[in-house]
Amino acid sequence: MSNETVLLAHGGGGRLTQELIARVFLPRLDNPALRRLEDSAVLGLAGLPDGARLAFTTDSYVVKPLFFPGGDIGRLAVCGTVNDLAVCGARPLYVSAAFVVEEGLPVETLAAVADSMRQAAAEAGVAVVTGDTKVVERGGADQLFVTTAGVGLVPAGVAVSAASARPGDAVIVSGAIGDHGIAIVSRRAGLEMEAEVESDVAPLNHLIAAMLEASGEVRAIRDATRGGVAAVLNELATASGVGVRLDEARLVVHEPVQSACDLLGYDPLYVANEGKLVAVVGAADAERVVEAMRRMRYGEEAAVVGEVVAEPKGRVLLRTRIGGTRIVTMPSGELLPRIC
Amino acid sequence: MSNETVLLAHGGGGRLTQELIARVFLPRLDNPALRRLEDSAVLGLAGLPDGARLAFTTDSYVVKPLFFPGGDIGRLAVCGTVNDLAVCGARPLYVSAAFVVEEGLPVETLAAVADSMRQAAAEAGVAVVTGDTKVVERGGADQLFVTTAGVGLVPAGVAVSAASARPGDAVIVSGAIGDHGIAIVSRRAGLEMEAEVESDVAPLNHLIAAMLEASGEVRAIRDATRGGVAAVLNELATASGVGVRLDEARLVVHEPVQSACDLLGYDPLYVANEGKLVAVVGAADAERVVEAMRRMRYGEEAAVVGEVVAEPKGRVLLRTRIGGTRIVTMPSGELLPRIC
Repeated sequence: MSNETVLLAHGGGGRLTQELIARVFLPRLDNPALRRLEDSAVLGLAGLPDGARLAFTTDSYVVKPLFFPGGDIGRLAVCGTVNDLAVCGARPLYVSAAFVVEEGLPVETLAAVADSMRQAAAEAGVAVVTGDTKVVERGGADQLFVTTAGVGLVPAGVAVSAASARPGDAVIVSGAIGDHGIAIVSRRAGLEMEAEVESDVAPLNHLIAAMLEASGEVRAIRDATRGGVAAVLNELATASGVGVRLDEARLVVHEPVQSACDLLGYDPLYVANEGKLVAVVGAADAERVVEAMRRMRYGEEAAVVGEVVAEPKGRVLLRTRIGGTRIVTMPSGELLPRIC
Repeated sequence: MSNETVLLAHGGGGRLTQELIARVFLPRLDNPALRRLEDSAVLGLAGLPDGARLAFTTDSYVVKPLFFPGGDIGRLAVCGTVNDLAVCGARPLYVSAAFVVEEGLPVETLAAVADSMRQAAAEAGVAVVTGDTKVVERGGADQLFVTTAGVGLVPAGVAVSAASARPGDAVIVSGAIGDHGIAIVSRRAGLEMEAEVESDVAPLNHLIAAMLEASGEVRAIRDATRGGVAAVLNELATASGVGVRLDEARLVVHEPVQSACDLLGYDPLYVANEGKLVAVVGAADAERVVEAMRRMRYGEEAAVVGEVVAEPKGRVLLRTRIGGTRIVTMPSGELLPRIC
């Protein structure tokens, strides 16, 4: 790697991100928790009773613009960390917030971001308990970066993992896909659309609690952020050694999002979401889980969209509306203008 | 605050940092853990036995240059988080690492930082269990920012807090002050010095464990980072409602650091350290604690440097070498070229 440099695509959440992690970080920082590469580390903690475990996660947020239809970097940072805990089966408890601020940012902007973090934290039922502020010279950062970390508790008996999908399981998506990515892109491109698309950024922990309550057969949950539903399903297929068959007709895509994708040449399966999850559930419980989701905010449009199959292992196949089949590959890197 | 913007000094760890936190973050994100403004939040966690508590902390690292005499941003990020946990009485356990990378950074640089994080984590006895990588466009960040968070366990019966100092207590500093700040500044200024100053960046958790073992009267510990020993002692004096009297003759300052300070017009009391702590200990146990510290790596030059007094409350006074007395004020903002 002597002359190699980091590319934007290394941060895209796709194949190049995986490669960077596998080549640079894993060999050096290797330990069992990190190696699992789930959205949170799930950890033993001396003293916790009866198989309960600690969940711990972090993400940096570098979104442009800081404020976008449906949300802002503050809501994004709290919800992203809450969701990374919740998809691992944890009840999110505490969040930290570290700010890297470019000199010259209006103090009011920082206050608006903090307001938004408070609202998101209240909705999720977590507290922002510790933080840090660093200021860099003008030109040393792009306005504001926010890094959140979170801790939560995984109750005894809960074990959801990307490696647990089995042939025959149902694949559920919690609602319409692509809203966040298109909201950001359209704002950045100054795109005129008939209906403004709002980001779906939302805390999913209450929805996930309802799913886990409805069934003991919820095997895997992932939130479909960078790289979209395509990246998450490819990761699930690889981690579990199974295939996934999706039915295009069952995927929900809001009309303005589909129009924007058609116009810009994007595939909604690859567009980022910030309030949508993909779940793998034992087939017998799938309808019960979907019904429980539909009663919850952020789950009203939940649907079974496909199934887990034995072959081809590690592959995601899409049955198209016109009856064909195509492979949904892992995104290699940057497909969209940068949205995260 | 309608036209106010964030200044570099808001990130300096002094009075302006405190004001920003008090005006922008505390009113919006208020909760009991955040309000204490300790280096870590110390939190209840259902299931932990017998008064044990969870400690949780975060810091962003934006140091320039990334590599400096005695360390680099990776060692800094791990040690800083380990120390923020340890000074609250916690045994550090797990660390997260979030990277914001500027497009074009050599992959080898990232690998060298990860190597250094591994070494620091091994020395401290913690594991880096979860992480994130974002890449921003060229010019959107200054090479590399690293944000670490950490969790640890505070054993039952341990309660160290900046609010616990009492008149009569001894003030201990764990060694020579100012090394980190001068190492960074001299490297950035291209300063030619007879002896190169190396940063003191180090994990202090084993030293702190030895202190807590030696005495049950260790009331407060802080690591003296941004703002130096002056900022930490002012915070202690304010939080505890006491005064502090320092004896200049007892402070250890290495000769090259003093020379650089004389040349550049800095006061070592305000220069940042990354491997030095200030402790307040019951007077009867002070010598025993110092002896225990001197047997430990990173504590060889520990010494009692002053005492806690009843008046003037919230003030730090320095008895100078020539017999005078001066007030050591809280740094207002940026005193040094940016070192963190």
